[in-house]
Amino acid sequence: MVYITRIEHFNAAHKLFNPSWSKEKNEEVFGKCANENWHGHNFNLHVTVKGEPNPNTGFVFDAKRLSIIIKEYVTDLLDHKNLNVEVPFLKDKICSIENLVIGIWKQLVQNMPTDVVLHRLKLYETDKIYVEYFG
Amino acid sequence: MVYITRIEHFNAAHKLFNPSWSKEKNEEVFGKCANENWHGHNFNLHVTVKGEPNPNTGFVFDAKRLSIIIKEYVTDLLDHKNLNVEVPFLKDKICSIENLVIGIWKQLVQNMPTDVVLHRLKLYETDKIYVEYFG
Amino acid sequence: MVYITRIEHFNAAHKLFNPSWSKEKNEEVFGKCANENWHGHNFNLHVTVKGEPNPNTGFVFDAKRLSIIIKEYVTDLLDHKNLNVEVPFLKDKICSIENLVIGIWKQLVQNMPTDVVLHRLKLYETDKIYVEYFG
Amino acid sequence: MVYITRIEHFNAAHKLFNPSWSKEKNEEVFGKCANENWHGHNFNLHVTVKGEPNPNTGFVFDAKRLSIIIKEYVTDLLDHKNLNVEVPFLKDKICSIENLVIGIWKQLVQNMPTDVVLHRLKLYETDKIYVEYFG
Amino acid sequence: MVYITRIEHFNAAHKLFNPSWSKEKNEEVFGKCANENWHGHNFNLHVTVKGEPNPNTGFVFDAKRLSIIIKEYVTDLLDHKNLNVEVPFLKDKICSIENLVIGIWKQLVQNMPTDVVLHRLKLYETDKIYVEYFG
Amino acid sequence: MVYITRIEHFNAAHKLFNPSWSKEKNEEVFGKCANENWHGHNFNLHVTVKGEPNPNTGFVFDAKRLSIIIKEYVTDLLDHKNLNVEVPFLKDKICSIENLVIGIWKQLVQNMPTDVVLHRLKLYETDKIYVEYFG
Repeated sequence: MVYITRIEHFNAAHKLFNPSWSKEKNEEVFGKCANENWHGHNFNLHVTVKGEPNPNTGFVFDAKRLSIIIKEYVTDLLDHKNLNVEVPFLKDKICSIENLVIGIWKQLVQNMPTDVVLHRLKLYETDKIYVEYFG
Repeated sequence: MVYITRIEHFNAAHKLFNPSWSKEKNEEVFGKCANENWHGHNFNLHVTVKGEPNPNTGFVFDAKRLSIIIKEYVTDLLDHKNLNVEVPFLKDKICSIENLVIGIWKQLVQNMPTDVVLHRLKLYETDKIYVEYFG
Repeated sequence: MVYITRIEHFNAAHKLFNPSWSKEKNEEVFGKCANENWHGHNFNLHVTVKGEPNPNTGFVFDAKRLSIIIKEYVTDLLDHKNLNVEVPFLKDKICSIENLVIGIWKQLVQNMPTDVVLHRLKLYETDKIYVEYFG
Repeated sequence: MVYITRIEHFNAAHKLFNPSWSKEKNEEVFGKCANENWHGHNFNLHVTVKGEPNPNTGFVFDAKRLSIIIKEYVTDLLDHKNLNVEVPFLKDKICSIENLVIGIWKQLVQNMPTDVVLHRLKLYETDKIYVEYFG
Repeated sequence: MVYITRIEHFNAAHKLFNPSWSKEKNEEVFGKCANENWHGHNFNLHVTVKGEPNPNTGFVFDAKRLSIIIKEYVTDLLDHKNLNVEVPFLKDKICSIENLVIGIWKQLVQNMPTDVVLHRLKLYETDKIYVEYFG
Repeated sequence: MVYITRIEHFNAAHKLFNPSWSKEKNEEVFGKCANENWHGHNFNLHVTVKGEPNPNTGFVFDAKRLSIIIKEYVTDLLDHKNLNVEVPFLKDKICSIENLVIGIWKQLVQNMPTDVVLHRLKLYETDKIYVEYFG
């Protein structure tokens, strides 16, 4: 079993905000991340798939093909977007990086070809904070 | 003459938008950066000052003191903010990285102590795009 | 289950030295790392906790709160310190990066709130050497 | 159990090419990676071994000794080489990064001292693509 | 005057080889870089242009437009190529990084629009070696 | 004129301390950097030389030869050392990064071959602080 990872980027705006709470409660819990006027990040996404190398190609999965799938189902929906407002798969969710990585997983796992297994997502929000998710 | 640089970070939302243009014209010129719902970045700012090392301290300028000045006059005004809406020194400016670095320079140069000379700003918008400004 | 990681930094001096050995034996085993006059590093520490996202916050654990815990129990004790001389939890231990990461784990695991599980530490000593520890 | 990783580098040329296919079929499957005149990469290799720290040294395994083993059995055979032409352990293999990491594993695992267990290889082909292998 | 930089990547094979010298002389001067079977690198190219920001756009130069120019005149000619064999602007040149950066400058400066001034190229061959060129 | 840079590393201990001041005054000025028991860093040093490429080699200066000179006159004297105690060229100097970069310049400029001009040193003390010096 070999694991191959492709790294992609997207830039987006968001805020951390629970609509069932007051403005004060949101600021108390989320601090400056609750700013109503939004803030944003350069997100780095590592998508890892696993499998046995194909004897004819040496590939577990063609990294270029993986990049195209990530673009179609993830980064085209997220890049230069407002995560709270414009992303169908985050609708009615709090836009934390944890919920974001779970949403990206669902997008990818249901659109992944049958010859490969999605293994892990790693998502950097800043240079100092990242999440990992295995489904 | 020795040049010393301190690197600081801030995360912010913005859009590229000329209010004297139509929505269509803005999209034609700025592409997805014109998204009305905002997008955002992790910005990295390199602030360089120059001078002769003080014989008593070995310092051109104390990097911690430089960090405090950058925090007070720059990152506290920009971090987790919407650059188009909430930043006094960007009011009525197009929020390009070029105008942002010029605005940061003005904030710093007028608040810099007399014993040091502001030399250069370098500002990363993404891992692939940065600007430099020397006043 | 989502894993969230916070990265923190500290700078410290140390030497690799077994007090039950002669100076010659220490130099034979540890090479220039045994220098009696110390050397030092910029250490990067990745602290990973795991859990289910809280439905009200979207958080497994607030990264800012995690940062405060790391500061109180780890980096305030290590930053700008001599690891061999000044760190209670390394007393009578050889100051290898392996023993350092085990000591940091003990500091964190006994001071971690009950709503989160410490999963992994990753500690860089240089750009080319790191250790991982899972308890 | 502590895991310690040493990172090493090598630069090499290769092409992706299946000799049982026509030139057209190779270009269709491998794209510009099939260029008959070769292309190349700066490869970064992370070698992770695991064990209990030795009470006398604090080491799972001396990182310098690990570096020497990697040099002897891996990077001396790969650095500034043509992977398709000059590397005995890749003979008759398609020079994908998946086959490369499997070949490196075999080189290391059969030459690893008995006091340490090879745990994981991580191999970067570019800043955006890496593989992991656990044997 | 503001300086804006766009970073692009290309992967290529090359060797250092002076055809007027013997094989032995080439190996004496260039060491393993003279390997007849080629080696290769992931090259990172920083292209810096300078100018006054346009009052209507805030741009010195649109970074996406700069990226398109670099792709057309530089990276499409170099990416996944053999620098010694396949690159017209390096014909009959020794394929050192110094000659490569001079060749890239000539490609860009003669195809740069009149509203911008090419200022500097910075080209990384490895993580530890880079060249800069100002024309 | 082409500028070529070689990056080298060294790890060292130091403290910031003016022996003509009291302990209290040192702590007031230098904060935790004045810790009597030392702290340390992973230093990254960029050495830039300039010249015209030699028509026979394509080189301004062989990067391997540059590396050997840096090792002999700089990193062998600094790596795994205590900068305050063990480095002749820092004797009686305050061990700030400014004085360190000036000392490294003097070491290099007087031992540089006549066919190359030392242009710039850039020295990182941490990921967030660096100095530059041009002689």
